[in-house]
Formats: sequence, C-alpha cells, structure tokens
Amino acid sequence: MKFYKNPPKSEWAEICSRPALESGNLTTIIEDIFNTVATSGDKALRDYTLKFDNARISELLVSQEEIENAAAQISNELKVSIALAINNVRQFHSAQKLERTIIETSPGVECWQEERPIEKVGLYIPGGSAPLFSTIIMLAVPAQIAGCKELVLCTPPDKDGNINPAILYTAAQTGVTSIFKVGGAQAIAALTYGTESIPAVYKLFGPGNQYVTAAKQFAQQKGVAIDMPAGPSELLVYADETANPAFVASDLLSQAEHGPDSQVVCVSDSEKVLKMVQAEVDAQLALLPRKDIAEKALANSLFVNFDVLKEASQFINEYAPEHLIICSENEKFLVKNTLNAGSVFLGNYSPESAGDYASGTNHTLPTSGYAKTYSGLSLQAFTKKITFQRLTTQGIRTIGPAIETMAEAEGLQAHKNAVTLRLNEIKK
Amino acid sequence: MKFYKNPPKSEWAEICSRPALESGNLTTIIEDIFNTVATSGDKALRDYTLKFDNARISELLVSQEEIENAAAQISNELKVSIALAINNVRQFHSAQKLERTIIETSPGVECWQEERPIEKVGLYIPGGSAPLFSTIIMLAVPAQIAGCKELVLCTPPDKDGNINPAILYTAAQTGVTSIFKVGGAQAIAALTYGTESIPAVYKLFGPGNQYVTAAKQFAQQKGVAIDMPAGPSELLVYADETANPAFVASDLLSQAEHGPDSQVVCVSDSEKVLKMVQAEVDAQLALLPRKDIAEKALANSLFVNFDVLKEASQFINEYAPEHLIICSENEKFLVKNTLNAGSVFLGNYSPESAGDYASGTNHTLPTSGYAKTYSGLSLQAFTKKITFQRLTTQGIRTIGPAIETMAEAEGLQAHKNAVTLRLNEIKK
Repeated sequence: MKFYKNPPKSEWAEICSRPALESGNLTTIIEDIFNTVATSGDKALRDYTLKFDNARISELLVSQEEIENAAAQISNELKVSIALAINNVRQFHSAQKLERTIIETSPGVECWQEERPIEKVGLYIPGGSAPLFSTIIMLAVPAQIAGCKELVLCTPPDKDGNINPAILYTAAQTGVTSIFKVGGAQAIAALTYGTESIPAVYKLFGPGNQYVTAAKQFAQQKGVAIDMPAGPSELLVYADETANPAFVASDLLSQAEHGPDSQVVCVSDSEKVLKMVQAEVDAQLALLPRKDIAEKALANSLFVNFDVLKEASQFINEYAPEHLIICSENEKFLVKNTLNAGSVFLGNYSPESAGDYASGTNHTLPTSGYAKTYSGLSLQAFTKKITFQRLTTQGIRTIGPAIETMAEAEGLQAHKNAVTLRLNEIKK
Repeated sequence: MKFYKNPPKSEWAEICSRPALESGNLTTIIEDIFNTVATSGDKALRDYTLKFDNARISELLVSQEEIENAAAQISNELKVSIALAINNVRQFHSAQKLERTIIETSPGVECWQEERPIEKVGLYIPGGSAPLFSTIIMLAVPAQIAGCKELVLCTPPDKDGNINPAILYTAAQTGVTSIFKVGGAQAIAALTYGTESIPAVYKLFGPGNQYVTAAKQFAQQKGVAIDMPAGPSELLVYADETANPAFVASDLLSQAEHGPDSQVVCVSDSEKVLKMVQAEVDAQLALLPRKDIAEKALANSLFVNFDVLKEASQFINEYAPEHLIICSENEKFLVKNTLNAGSVFLGNYSPESAGDYASGTNHTLPTSGYAKTYSGLSLQAFTKKITFQRLTTQGIRTIGPAIETMAEAEGLQAHKNAVTLRLNEIKK
C-alpha cells in the first residue's frame, strides 16, 4: 500500500500511471492463429481447443439439449437473482433508446437521426474458475434491446467439453442466438473471418486474458469494431468522515479480489479516515477465500490524502477511474466536477457490486485511464445512428446559395452544380 | 461503368467490395516518424515540414495576427455562407444533448447517465489544392457544444509557411483553441505524444491521405481514440421514375469529383431510368473542371437494376453506403428497411452537397462498408457518458440478496461481502 499526502500535481501522472500491458510480443502468435483459422476454419478451432483447453470437441455449436439441461442444474435462488438483474439492466438500457426528433435547421430543411442495430455482434465470455454469467447479461440484454439479429457467444469449454450451466442458462434468458465452444484468440479469429460453423460479426464485445485482448486489437485492424480497449479492473473511493470505513474496505477488497493486477485507490480529506479504512481492510482480508490475490492487488494500492477538495477532484479526473465511489458530504461538488470516470456510486449503500450485478447499469467500463475518452457500454454500443434529411424547394432556396458559395471556395464545382441545377429547375 | 441486372445474392459481396486500402507497407515509415517526434519534438516537426511541405517554419503556432488578417481576405458572401452553415450544424448537434433521466430500476435503486466532454481533442485538416474549411465546421462545432476544453487543429502550411485564410477564419468562428502549421503523420504523432508546442490529445478527428490514415491507426494502438476508420468517399442513389435524372447525375458527379477512388453507385427498378441518368452523367461531365478525376471514379461506378424492391433494399444494406440518396415513390419502405448507411437524403431537392456543407448534419461519415457498424460523427463523438447510481437502504435490501447470490455463484466472495456488511448494518 502506498500512501501520499497532498502530492504535487507534477507527480500525479506518475502516481496515476497503470502498469503497461504487454501485447507487443503476442503479435506473432496472434497473427499465426488468425491465419490458421482463416485457412482451416472449424478444424483449426478444434485443434486449438485440444491444444489450449485440453478438450476434444466434435460439435462446436452448443445443442438445444445442452441448453435445456443447464436449466435443471441451476438453483431456483440463482434463477430468481438472474431474472432480477436482467430486468433492471433491461429497464435501464431500454430508457436509452434514441427518440426521433426532427430539427428544422432552416425553413424547409428537416434533419433527424434514427437508430439501427448492428446486425451481427460477437460476445466473448472467458472460461476459467469463475463463470462470468453476469457479463452475458451486460452484453446480450442491450444487444437484444437494440435489435441485433445475430448474438454469437463464444466461450471455452472445460476438459470434458462442457460449458458451465450458469453461462448456458443466462445466454438462453437473454436472446443469445448461438453459443460456440471455443475460447481464446482462436474464438476472436473465428468471429472476425467466419468459419463453417461460426458467422463473422461486425463488432466484438467482452473481457478476456492478454491473448483475447491482443486478438481483439488485431481484429480491429482487420476492420471489425471492438467495444473498448481492455485493462485490469479498478476502483477509486473518495471517503470523508461521513463514509463507513468498513463499507469502504469491503468495496476496495471486492475490487482487489478480481486479480493481482487490479487497481485500488482510496482518496480522503482525512488521514484518520484512511487509517480506519486501512485497519478494516486488514481485518476483512483475513477472511477472504481469494486472500492471496487480493493481497497482491493491495500491495500496489494507493491511499491519498488531500487537504483541498478541489485538488482531490482534479486528482480523480487525472486518474480517470473505471469505478468511482463517492461517500462524502461534498458529494454535490464532486459529482459536478467528475469529468472522467466509467461508473459512479453515490453514498454508503451503493457498493460497486450493485453495478457489477443487478442495479441496471452496465459493468463493461473503460479502464486504464480510458475513461478520459471512452464511455462504458450502453445501448448505443450496439446501434448506429443514421442521419436523415429532407429539403423542400423552399429548403434548397434557403440554403442553396450558401452551399454554392462554399463548394466553389473549396474548388468543388460538381458539388455546386448539384445545387445550381435544382435552383434553376425551381425558377422555371 | 459496370452494369448489373438482378445480380444474385451470391455475387453481392464481390460487387460491393471496395478496393482494399494499402497501409501495411507504411508501418515502418509511420513508426519512424512517431519515434522521431517522440524524441525530438518541435524540431522533428520543423524538419518534416521542410522535407514534406517544402516550408521553413519557425513558429508552429498560428499567431493571433495571422488569424485576424485572414478575416480580411474572405469575401462577405463566404462569411455569410459559413455563418449559415455553422448555425445549422450547431442547431442539429445541440439537439443531440443527452437529457438526464433518472430510472428507478428497483425500489430505492436510482440509475442515470450524465454526459461529459472529452477534454482534449485533435482536429486534422488536410492541405492540398482545396481548403477543407467545411470539415472544421463539422468537427469544431460539436466539440464546442460538447464543452471540450482544448480543440487543437493541425494543418500543413503552403510553401510560404501560410495557412489558407478560409481555414483560419472558420477555425476562429468555431472555438478552435489553437492552430498549428504541421500536417501528415508528423501532426498525428505530435497530437499523440505532445511536443513543446503541441499538446497531446485524447481523441483524433479528421480526414487525410494514406499517411494520415495509417498514422491515426498507429495512434489508436498507442491508446489515443480516433473518430472512425477512413476510406474513399461514396454515394449510392436509389432512383425510380419519380427521380429527376439530371439531379441524380449531378449528385453522382459531385461524389465522383472527390477523387479517382471515389465510389459511385446508382440502383433502380428501371433500366430506362439508369440509361437516362447515364446520358445525363455524360453530358454534365464534359463541363466539369475536375473532369479527369470524375471520369476515373466513374469507370468503377456501378449501375444496378433490380426488379424486386426488397432485393434492392437488401443490396443497399449489403453495400452500406456512406451517403444514400432515395428518390422513390417507395421512400417509406426504403427508409424503414435501411439498416446500414451513414447519412440519407430524401427526395429530389436533397442533394448530397446539402449535407456536405450546410443542412446541419455532419459530413464525417463511415465509408467502405463501415456503416454496418459505425455512426457518422455526432455530439456523442466528443463526449463520454458516465453512469451514476444511488441505492438507499431500501434499495440495497431490495437487490442485495440477488447480488449476494450471483457473486457467490461467480466465486467472488468479497463482492458478496460488500453487500452482506451493509445488510447486517441495516438490520442492527
């Protein structure tokens, strides 16, 4: 744990810097996998799945029977919880639909936007110890609301060639149209180029390890869009004396348990609060099953004390946290001045877990300072906005001369001509 | 000009394919320029400007005096036209502001989005024969409405070290905060890393040649966001017998004059209409100053006749044009079924030039089929959406148990714990 007191601005960039992700060395491996999948299709996917996942797969597509069997393996309690989460995520993202508003910018010139789904989207869900079925909710529910036609989910199988039932069950509840037993860079390659079984998609979503991340970057160069650049998960808590130190500690630990490279930051106007949080972290840590992971993440964590609130706020913007919890009597000031953050949690009863699972907001958020530029996922990540315009004869009369003048000044005579012809026709 | 009659779907992908952009060979050149700019800063920029633009520049920043002098060199007619265009673009993009709507997804669980500007944006404007001042309007006006703090414009100087007065004048009218005399990949490198004079930015916007395009892709790998992938400009017109063939031809030509690699497509239910359009194209072409360029673009143009309207609509979606003009008695059907397009122009009096300059819609749009995935620029390209949430004690009671169940099922005990602690506190 690193402690800073009123660090000068000149040091902020260094304090806020995240460990650089190494992906350069992976380029050759990724390129090789992409080329092999492009050439050998499904066969390459089966070979890689045997090599990397130790699983022998004949049929890549998960069958209807497997999906139905999954439901029987899920407790009723979990089903009810998933239903609540889906309902809240659906409500929040449905409210993001663009309303068509026609703007008459000049007399006779009507302009508006309409939203259309991205037709084919690829959803990647990692394998490993924890089945991240909550991420399916965060990706598939907005895709479904958007009206995407193909929601193609790829996830690696276990050694026996099976997918965790919670993943299959959640996918079935959220309109996923097909599920394939393939993971890693080879899954991303399949979604990029398409194979006999797996359709090529227009945009890729979802978390993954360094190989998946590098593969998504490679896919982007091949013309497939991606959700956002990926990095380890992060939480910054601003806590003053109105914050409950035990709650703050539990939130910091919930972030720290994600992985040894998770980033955890606590900012306060009070050294006393920081010490109380620290003591609570130590006490709660001992009881955690993922103690070893959390401990490593905590070793790199930052505790920062600022006497001046405005400086604290500026520091938060420089850090640009993925998750930001604000427990402060100065909440109003901090909210207003928060420029860079993925998702913000207000008050003592809004833990980050709420947004991770069930409040309704999306948990796919920009990390590594990308909150300076990128938004978390919303309905609009699954749609395009098309602009429309209609000019009447009055409209072309109103703005036509300006178009002619500007086109001429840019040396584009045919652009001018398209207006002149119409104006002449009207004069007849 | 290539003519197709009811081409089978199996051939659409081939017919719709655009010439591949070569950027692979440029990687070494671009990497070298980026490294040199990172190391030598302003000096590198001056050296490259001498080498590539034949201009000796001492001061990269355009002075206030230069900007003021530019105004005197612009005709009043052009000033009035630029003012009209700015006003319409401002109206249309101002209407895109996100309204804060609080959604109570469960009792005591409030979620909402707030929009924040991307603080620092880089606007690239190419040099060359035509001064693209209209593009400044399309980039700077939404950036200004969004509230971006730094609007940094880079554009290459002429041999005498000057910038076209129309560019300086328009930049001054649209809130650009600084203008630098540097172009090409070196400008993109400067905006990526920052130099003594030029600030690093978070997102890059604007068109450019193959070097600029490759440099933007390189910048993206270095963590700077870009507006969208670039490609040659395109227009597809759907015209039936209600269309004015002379107007259609003038629109096709306005696209064709952009460059020899511009893409021009005309789709119709009537061979007769296509022939009339063709005859008009030939007649109007002869009179154009940029005839040679337009002729080359027209050599690759497509004229496609479909007997069945639904097939025409599906073909348009497969092509996914940057610009789509619809002059048809079946406009309603075509609009409803248009899934993939950048900007759509309806009826005989809505030339593409209107959207290029002055109607209010943005002219920075997805090309090369990227309209399947990307939107054109809107206010949201210059902002991020941050999600907020506040749970009351009632809220955590309502959704807390679901969070606990899901976190446990994902093996994330600390996530569960953050809720359990709070629920226990409430019970006290």
